[in-house]
Amino acid sequence: MNHEDCPGFQTAGVSCGLKKNGQKDLGLIYSEVPAKVAGLFTQNRIQAAPVQLDRQRIGNGVCRALIVNSGNANCCTGEQGMRDAVDMAAYVAAGLSVPEEEVLVSSTGVIGEPLPIEKIKHGIPTLIEALNVDGVHDLAEAIMTTDTQPKVVNRRGELDGKKFSVTGVAKGSGMIRPDMATMLCFVMTDIEAPLEMLKEMLKTAVNSSLNRITVDGDTSTNDTVLLMANGLSGVEILNDTQQAGFQKVLDDVLLSLAKWLIRDGEGATKLVEIIVKGAESVQDARRIADTVAHSNLFKTALFGEDANWGRIVAAVGRAGVAVEPGNLDVRFGPVLMVQNGLGCGKTVEAEATKVLQQPEFDITIDLKLGSGHASVITCDFSIDYVKINADYRT
Amino acid sequence: MNHEDCPGFQTAGVSCGLKKNGQKDLGLIYSEVPAKVAGLFTQNRIQAAPVQLDRQRIGNGVCRALIVNSGNANCCTGEQGMRDAVDMAAYVAAGLSVPEEEVLVSSTGVIGEPLPIEKIKHGIPTLIEALNVDGVHDLAEAIMTTDTQPKVVNRRGELDGKKFSVTGVAKGSGMIRPDMATMLCFVMTDIEAPLEMLKEMLKTAVNSSLNRITVDGDTSTNDTVLLMANGLSGVEILNDTQQAGFQKVLDDVLLSLAKWLIRDGEGATKLVEIIVKGAESVQDARRIADTVAHSNLFKTALFGEDANWGRIVAAVGRAGVAVEPGNLDVRFGPVLMVQNGLGCGKTVEAEATKVLQQPEFDITIDLKLGSGHASVITCDFSIDYVKINADYRT
Repeated sequence: MNHEDCPGFQTAGVSCGLKKNGQKDLGLIYSEVPAKVAGLFTQNRIQAAPVQLDRQRIGNGVCRALIVNSGNANCCTGEQGMRDAVDMAAYVAAGLSVPEEEVLVSSTGVIGEPLPIEKIKHGIPTLIEALNVDGVHDLAEAIMTTDTQPKVVNRRGELDGKKFSVTGVAKGSGMIRPDMATMLCFVMTDIEAPLEMLKEMLKTAVNSSLNRITVDGDTSTNDTVLLMANGLSGVEILNDTQQAGFQKVLDDVLLSLAKWLIRDGEGATKLVEIIVKGAESVQDARRIADTVAHSNLFKTALFGEDANWGRIVAAVGRAGVAVEPGNLDVRFGPVLMVQNGLGCGKTVEAEATKVLQQPEFDITIDLKLGSGHASVITCDFSIDYVKINADYRT
Repeated sequence: MNHEDCPGFQTAGVSCGLKKNGQKDLGLIYSEVPAKVAGLFTQNRIQAAPVQLDRQRIGNGVCRALIVNSGNANCCTGEQGMRDAVDMAAYVAAGLSVPEEEVLVSSTGVIGEPLPIEKIKHGIPTLIEALNVDGVHDLAEAIMTTDTQPKVVNRRGELDGKKFSVTGVAKGSGMIRPDMATMLCFVMTDIEAPLEMLKEMLKTAVNSSLNRITVDGDTSTNDTVLLMANGLSGVEILNDTQQAGFQKVLDDVLLSLAKWLIRDGEGATKLVEIIVKGAESVQDARRIADTVAHSNLFKTALFGEDANWGRIVAAVGRAGVAVEPGNLDVRFGPVLMVQNGLGCGKTVEAEATKVLQQPEFDITIDLKLGSGHASVITCDFSIDYVKINADYRT
C-alpha cells in the first residue's frame, strides 16, 4: 500500500474527455465496507445538482462510493442536470454492486453548460477498473481545475496502542472564500466513531482550516467537504480523550490542505496569515481579518512587496467595527511597523520590506480594545490571477 | 470667463514639490463672497486629519476657500497631522484675508507619511497668485493621483428666466466603493438656497451617482464631497419646483463625474452598469448588485470579454439574500443569456460576446421575486490594475 492511501479505500482517476487536453477528469473513491460519512456544503444560494443530491443522500450517514468529475460544474443545468447527477451515481452503483443511495457525486468546472453525461457513462467502466489502493494521486489529479498541483495529505496517528490513518485530497485555487464552505475536499479515515461525533469533528477541523482561507472572496456553487470513516483500523473514538487525539490529526490534515490551496492559489506568490487581536469580540476580529484579506489594494501591494501599511489601516477602518485609531499596532512578521496609529519610519520600513520578500509570513493587527482574536490565511494578488481568470474558458 | 468655470469662484492648481515629477499637487478654490457649503465625508473609521478638521468647520455652513493637496493623505499622522491641516488653512486664510474657520482642507495620496508642510507653505503664495476664473482645469490636475485625466464637468440651467451654473471637479480611480462616501469631489454653483436644502440636494445627488460606483471595493480615509453655493446668479431655490429643477442639473453633474471616475478607473477598459430587478426589496437588489460588482472573477471575465455568466450566477447566490434559482434571468445588454436559471446556448452566447466587446453596456439580473430594483456602475479588472497597485509607491 502506498503510504498516502488509507486502508479499505480504493481510489482512481482517469480521463473521459471532459477536459480538452486529455488530462484526468473523472475520479472515484470506493470503500470496501460501508463507511460512515459526514459532509459540509457550500452556503451559496445557487447550488449545483450534485450538491443538491448529496445533501439528500448524506442524511443516511452511509457511503460506499463517491464519483467526481472536473471540467463541468453541473450547475444551473435544471432538471436535466439533476437527472445526470443521479445517473452518474447509478452507473457507479451498478458497476460496484453497491446501493445507489450510498453513492455520492461531486462536480467542479464551468457553470451552466450541460454535463456531457455520455462521456462520463463511457468513462465509468475504465474508472472502476482503475480502482486500486494506490490511486489517491490519480484521484487528486482528476479533480484539478486551475490547480497547478494535485493535493494529497496523509497523516498517521495512534490511539490506545492502535494505529490509524487520515488521508485528504483537495482541489481549488480560485473562487475561494471562508465561511461559505470551501472547495472540493474528500477525507478518508479508518477509524470508527458515532456519526454525530464525526460531524462535529469535521466541522471543528473545517472551521480552523478551510473556513479560514481566502484567495479572491468568491465562493462556488459546488463546494463540498466529505469525511468518510470505515472503521477498519479497529480504533474506536468514544470518549473525549480519544476525540481530542483524532481531532488533532484531522485538524492537521485539513490545515495542511488549506495552506496548500492558498500556496497554489491562482497566481499566488505568497502565503500570508492575517492575525487580528485586541478586538472587542471574536466576530469583530474576524471581520477585520476578512476585510484586510479581501482588499485588492492590500493584496496587490503584497504582490509588489510594498510595505504600504496605509492600505491595511484603511481596510481596518472600513470593516465596520469598533476601532480606536490611536491604539492601532501593525506588525509585519516581528517588525513593528505602526505603533498607536503612527508609522514607525523609513528604517523600520526597510526591515518590514525584508519580511514581505519571504514566501510565507504573518501580519498582526492589534486593536488594543479587548480580547477578541481571529486569523485568516490568504495570498497576494498578482498579474497572473487576472490572466488566469480573463482566459479561463478559452 | 471659461465656459467650465462658475461665476464668483476663482480656482488654481500649481506644483509645490509633493509629487516627484513636478506635476501639479496643490489646488485652491476661492469664493469671492461667503458661500454656503454642504459636505459628505468618508464612512471609514480611520479618518485623515483634513477630514476631521472639515467635519468641525462645516458646521458653520459658510466657506470662503478650500485648499487641497495630492501626493500625501495626511492620514495616520497624529497630532502633528492635525496641526499641519490647521496650518494649511491658516496660511490660506492669511493670504486671502478671510476668516480661518471658513477655510476647508482636503488631502489625497499615500497614508501614514508626515505631510511636507514646509513645501505646502512655500507653495501657497504662488497658488494664491495663480487664482483666476479659468483655473478649474489646473485645480482638477492638482488633485489627481492615479487618475489619467483631470475631470471637470459644467452644466448650465435656467430657473424662472434666470441662468445658473454648476461646475464639479473630481478625482479618484482606485480605493473606490459605494456607500462609504466617495473620493474628492468639489462642486461650485452660483445659486442661493437654504443650507438644509443644499445638504439634502447634495445627499440626493451623491446617492444616485458617487454612491453607486465601485472600482475595487476599497474605500479611502480621505473621501470628501463639497457643494459650495455663492448665490451670485440671483437664482434662489425656495419651493419644490425650483428644487427639482436644480436637483436635475446637480444630479447630471455628479453622475457625469461618477461615470468618468469609472471610465478612468485603475486599469479599466469597460464601464458596466449592473442592474438588479425583481428582488424582494431595494436592499436585496443593492446587495446583489454590489456583490456582482465586487466579484473579481466576474470582473476579470469582463476584461477577457468572456460571457461567463456562471460567475454572475455564483455571485448572485452568495449575496446572502433570497434568490430562486429557477426564476433567474440574466441579460447582457439586450441579449437574454440566462432564462429561468438555464443558459440560452452557444448561439446566444456569441451575441452576448459582441455586447461584451463594447466599451460600455448594461448587465441586467432579474430575480422575478418582487419589485426591488437597484443598480451600480463598475469597471472590469485588468492586468493594469495589478501593475498600478503593486507599484503605487515606487
